[in-house]
Amino acid sequence: MKKYRLAAADAASLNELLTQVQTQTRDFLGYPVSKDFDYSPLLPFLQYPLNNLGDPFVPSTYAVGSREMEKQVVSFFADLFRAPENNWWGYVTNGGSEGNLYGLYLARELYPKGMVYYSEATHYSVQKNLHLLNMPGIIIRTLPNGEIDYGDLENTICMNRHLPVIILANIGTTMTEARDDVKRIMGILKHLAIPHYYIHADGALSGCYSAFLEPRPAFDFADGADSIAISGHKFIGSPIPCGVVVAKKSNRDRIARSVSYIGSMDTTITGSRNGHSPLFLWYALKSLGRNGLKERAMHSLAMAAYAVERLNENGIPAWRNPGAITVVFPDPPANVRRKWQLASESGCSHIICMPNVSKEQVDEFVKSFVDAMALV
Amino acid sequence: MKKYRLAAADAASLNELLTQVQTQTRDFLGYPVSKDFDYSPLLPFLQYPLNNLGDPFVPSTYAVGSREMEKQVVSFFADLFRAPENNWWGYVTNGGSEGNLYGLYLARELYPKGMVYYSEATHYSVQKNLHLLNMPGIIIRTLPNGEIDYGDLENTICMNRHLPVIILANIGTTMTEARDDVKRIMGILKHLAIPHYYIHADGALSGCYSAFLEPRPAFDFADGADSIAISGHKFIGSPIPCGVVVAKKSNRDRIARSVSYIGSMDTTITGSRNGHSPLFLWYALKSLGRNGLKERAMHSLAMAAYAVERLNENGIPAWRNPGAITVVFPDPPANVRRKWQLASESGCSHIICMPNVSKEQVDEFVKSFVDAMALV
Repeated sequence: MKKYRLAAADAASLNELLTQVQTQTRDFLGYPVSKDFDYSPLLPFLQYPLNNLGDPFVPSTYAVGSREMEKQVVSFFADLFRAPENNWWGYVTNGGSEGNLYGLYLARELYPKGMVYYSEATHYSVQKNLHLLNMPGIIIRTLPNGEIDYGDLENTICMNRHLPVIILANIGTTMTEARDDVKRIMGILKHLAIPHYYIHADGALSGCYSAFLEPRPAFDFADGADSIAISGHKFIGSPIPCGVVVAKKSNRDRIARSVSYIGSMDTTITGSRNGHSPLFLWYALKSLGRNGLKERAMHSLAMAAYAVERLNENGIPAWRNPGAITVVFPDPPANVRRKWQLASESGCSHIICMPNVSKEQVDEFVKSFVDAMALV
Repeated sequence: MKKYRLAAADAASLNELLTQVQTQTRDFLGYPVSKDFDYSPLLPFLQYPLNNLGDPFVPSTYAVGSREMEKQVVSFFADLFRAPENNWWGYVTNGGSEGNLYGLYLARELYPKGMVYYSEATHYSVQKNLHLLNMPGIIIRTLPNGEIDYGDLENTICMNRHLPVIILANIGTTMTEARDDVKRIMGILKHLAIPHYYIHADGALSGCYSAFLEPRPAFDFADGADSIAISGHKFIGSPIPCGVVVAKKSNRDRIARSVSYIGSMDTTITGSRNGHSPLFLWYALKSLGRNGLKERAMHSLAMAAYAVERLNENGIPAWRNPGAITVVFPDPPANVRRKWQLASESGCSHIICMPNVSKEQVDEFVKSFVDAMALV
């Protein structure tokens, strides 16, 4: 067959894009994306169509993939999240959003009449997911730090005690990285004597390192979660958006029964599944280990503490939640927001101290912020 | 930060996987996956977290991505599929299955009370999608060649004339690559005076080249389809499963209104979207052009014709649908099925003559089939 060749103009726009991507990745404090990955040893795999078709734990006739590595990745997180022994299952998703879709889907299959509760600080993709799944939900107020308002949650569940309760808990909200306390939520459910409930934890960003914090936030299976979704391209870093969802195997098996009438044991959301992302995650986890992951977290936390300190010193009322790598402050002038690609919401912006963020970068950011304020 | 480093044992299993992938990709006739891609000029991009967050046609503050290229890819297919001028929209998905989910989602939003009709030869992921979307459906019989039974379809719709009609038409079924005739389906809807209907075309494999066939199969927007989904990693080839969905912009805009109450203009299924797949597709389409794509199709068709001929010569009752690159035959002995990774269904297997398949490979396959039969 003829080999692919690009016309000169197309080759030029490709080069232009590469330069643009390089430039724009450099100043990049506003999005929770690690950039310090080096997966060059994996590039030879990109010549092959790796496809982890269907459920990673069910053998497939399609043999070109990375299912073994995928299982190891899921196992790593099942362990980190204290999933019940011999009762966990999961897969590598296309991102945090698919993991949440999966958790909510499981919840709906278990409790078709369930009502979903989630705080107003929840990522908009969750509402998109609920809409897709045709699930009713109620939005709960947040406390000033972005955490769910437990009083409002209890009152609202109280008015719907006839319905099974499905809770989407944020383990790190998008804007302030607030964590909903899963143990406290369990307390509410017990207090109201709710017999049927499901808790899904959206740990897109902080799910990866919450286990290393002291005190350890209440977010995982041992604390009461039934499933946890994380993003892979955020804290760990990956060129391709990806994530991991871990659920209780017993729940997944009930779904498997409900879909088996369609002659398939495939309980994943998509059918063809990218086999490269599991390889990236596997490579990162194997080379970092738990300790390396913890080191990354500690570095990020130190940088966040440093940023708060430096900003406060300069009269900017910056703050962060306990154990958060996200630093929140009133909107800087527009040129600063543009330069560092900062998202803004209700007058607040944030930087996220990903593992690649250095003291020098924080200093540079603080300086540009302070300089811009002086001009206002 | 510390650089990633793999322990010796892990590096060894990585190497082992690479060898295994190389071997298993070589003998690979049973799955519709092109392997002749060469995207090496794109590898530098894999150092960066390209993310085409949200709707490609709505600007984003996240600037590291390939949205421009993605729009060109969608535009190419909108044109190839004769989408109404200035009334098309779409995006690059994670695979054919997500494209079908999107089409069905659009249909549900337009016709919440709609009944979905699809043939029994439909890919199992469609039933998974319907389950996820909470949509009721009726399975229609197929004709012996795998095409939908138009008589059964008409009778069944006739018994449900009070409900809007949603049809998932197969443009190439998984097993026999049969195409449901969209014009004929439109005729049935007209005959039954159905006022509200939606036709989604699942063109996972054959959608990419059906436009080049003569006579041209009735499958696209001009024939009556409201949305079309294709796979990118199949006929075009890509290391990462991907696809394209094209829909009428007016329909997508109605969805946009229904999700805008959640404060988002993002009408895609996932939020974070891989920016590398659009680059792969863009690169392939730009370097091949329409002519290159057509050449690939003609080569595949010639190989399929050749395979049927050679198998028939050897007394094997192989056959194919008109304009199909899939060749169907009674199950070969197990060792042949294993060697070539052939999927089997109700006593039939198939090979799919992807653009990378050569005469020599067909000869080798026929020989192994005939040799194995001689031993039975």
